[in-house]
Amino acid sequence: MSPEVAVVGCGMSNFGAYSGDAFPRVESVVDDALRDAGLAAEDVDEAWWASLAFGGGQLGNPAALVNGIEGLQGVAAHRVENACASGGYAVRSALQAIEAGRCEVALVVGFERMNDQPSHRSGYWLGVSGETPWERMAGTTFPGVYGLMASRHAHEHGTTREQLAQVAVKNHRFAADNPNAQFSKEVGLERVMDSPTVADPLRLFDCCGTTDGAAALVLTSAARADQIDAEATTITGAGAASDHLALHERPSLTELSATRTAGEEALREAGRSIEEVDLAEVHDCFTIAEILAIEDLGLAGKGEGGPATAEGRTDRGGACVVNPSGGLKGKGHPLGATGVAQVAEIHDQLLSRAGDRQIADAETGLTHNVGGSGATCAVHVLERGGT
Amino acid sequence: MSPEVAVVGCGMSNFGAYSGDAFPRVESVVDDALRDAGLAAEDVDEAWWASLAFGGGQLGNPAALVNGIEGLQGVAAHRVENACASGGYAVRSALQAIEAGRCEVALVVGFERMNDQPSHRSGYWLGVSGETPWERMAGTTFPGVYGLMASRHAHEHGTTREQLAQVAVKNHRFAADNPNAQFSKEVGLERVMDSPTVADPLRLFDCCGTTDGAAALVLTSAARADQIDAEATTITGAGAASDHLALHERPSLTELSATRTAGEEALREAGRSIEEVDLAEVHDCFTIAEILAIEDLGLAGKGEGGPATAEGRTDRGGACVVNPSGGLKGKGHPLGATGVAQVAEIHDQLLSRAGDRQIADAETGLTHNVGGSGATCAVHVLERGGT
Repeated sequence: MSPEVAVVGCGMSNFGAYSGDAFPRVESVVDDALRDAGLAAEDVDEAWWASLAFGGGQLGNPAALVNGIEGLQGVAAHRVENACASGGYAVRSALQAIEAGRCEVALVVGFERMNDQPSHRSGYWLGVSGETPWERMAGTTFPGVYGLMASRHAHEHGTTREQLAQVAVKNHRFAADNPNAQFSKEVGLERVMDSPTVADPLRLFDCCGTTDGAAALVLTSAARADQIDAEATTITGAGAASDHLALHERPSLTELSATRTAGEEALREAGRSIEEVDLAEVHDCFTIAEILAIEDLGLAGKGEGGPATAEGRTDRGGACVVNPSGGLKGKGHPLGATGVAQVAEIHDQLLSRAGDRQIADAETGLTHNVGGSGATCAVHVLERGGT
Repeated sequence: MSPEVAVVGCGMSNFGAYSGDAFPRVESVVDDALRDAGLAAEDVDEAWWASLAFGGGQLGNPAALVNGIEGLQGVAAHRVENACASGGYAVRSALQAIEAGRCEVALVVGFERMNDQPSHRSGYWLGVSGETPWERMAGTTFPGVYGLMASRHAHEHGTTREQLAQVAVKNHRFAADNPNAQFSKEVGLERVMDSPTVADPLRLFDCCGTTDGAAALVLTSAARADQIDAEATTITGAGAASDHLALHERPSLTELSATRTAGEEALREAGRSIEEVDLAEVHDCFTIAEILAIEDLGLAGKGEGGPATAEGRTDRGGACVVNPSGGLKGKGHPLGATGVAQVAEIHDQLLSRAGDRQIADAETGLTHNVGGSGATCAVHVLERGGT
């Protein structure tokens, strides 16, 4: 099938560490997204709320928090939790509801607050989406899991510390041009490579930060998009897949099969080859994750993600610009907000309103959102213009 | 719109307290649901996983656990968490995906394990879906919140302790006929009324238990249902709504507006009046919750839920039989599994395969699933036969 769903509005908070009540940030991004769409809160038929485990303290049933926003009282509200792919799956669910004809205007909110707890609690809450009996209970954290993947990638394909570091350098450079990014300074290759080891071979600058953030999208049917005064992009392809939670149950440590399946499905639906994708927001929670992503999406052959990065093929001017927002690495990674923010970034880029980080002439973009170490994945293809 | 989605298979574990690894219960209900549908795991296009906070220990990203079931590897898998309405909202999401034409065969799994933690932890996990800043942080638990509603209902409408108790007596009587129920014995009015106070006026037997359980459904398009060798019921109406999490932000303590909205929407879509509904599985986490439910769904006027129960209008032989499964009160309430199990019960009843608890000649049934103290609600209308 070919989806007929348009993105007509988006809102993004500045990502970082918040103090005080964070709910006004949610209100603000919802307001921005609705204003961008030229719609009122009363126009929203149904809402999706993406968060992992924080949700500003409302650990269960957080979707109902939308009732705190004027005009949204009573709206049907789903919470989607697929770890760090919550946002991407929330977009998928909203898309399905619109395609069903059951919902004409959908609001998708992604929100996470990770800095309001002592760091051991924050690590606990993040860690709960790791595989439980074998990984989490043994004390393995996400840097540990991705560190294993990085070590194996180096072993199998000769990926170097320098190639990993080049992902961070590129994404921090983009983040420096993004006023909403958590990290606003460029970092040099040596600084990344000399930063303290977190989980060998990953160093501090190979890891995304601990981030508070909110993002919102307004999606609607193609028919409704034609009637309203909003600049629109179209979701032309959607794919999703899952995989075993535990690394040891997968056939490979150096490939995320959920990315492969979801990516192929989204591109097939969009009728596009990966070569036609001008820019992509991929899930770079760690530098190795971006290398895996570009390989598994087909932007580079298996084992060639490191060299492709080093050669600048994913940088400005490259065949496909990867993470022009700064990515999770530079922009920040407020878990449930990430997948929503990825779509917002591609939307803004395709509409040529991405400010200093604008990629010229981008017509086709892709978002790639991963939960855990690859246990869930959602991919969307967006294109400029109406349906 | 009119949905064209069929229920073609269901599976239910026995509800209660499990020992050892509980995942085989999930495998077993999925197996049962697929066998019931005459389909194989490989036929499933997409899966929804409903759980609140336990998920057998996999607190985040639990939807990916479906990869542990032979034949489901790689399937797109969403976790829906809307507190105790997780199951109902998961059914809604699956329905939307089928209506979208994006998914032909949907698997919905509801699972919760509440007895594998010390009771203070179990209470913690359950409590997280209470409203956070005003209720949970002040120490108010769900019995406390529903106790407030019960007190106010008594004050406004004269609802008596005896009327509350009659809900429990009826539902335990039904549960005694349900081989999967957690509580298999009838209880008398005096036993309920003399049981220890939990949160005045609610006593021990006014409260549902702490339950482990799993349930699964297979949903498909009407077209596919016609091609397979399975007895089918049709979801003819679906409604959902939300409300403020905190009681003090709502205009009334004795009405759940989310129930009203979701119920009206589902009935309108089904083209049915509430008088045409032969049986209903409603969210009786506490006895007062069933009284609120039958009032807000329109089975009784406001304030008449107590007398209606006392007069047997919701019992076998009444105008609409409420909670023939035993309800949350008698059958048990494994949070995320509850909304899924409600649909399974109505499906079995409409197909005349509900054993000793069968309600004769039931043609139209309704499920009503509430999250928290009414912050989210999903209602479905099911009818006998194909679409």
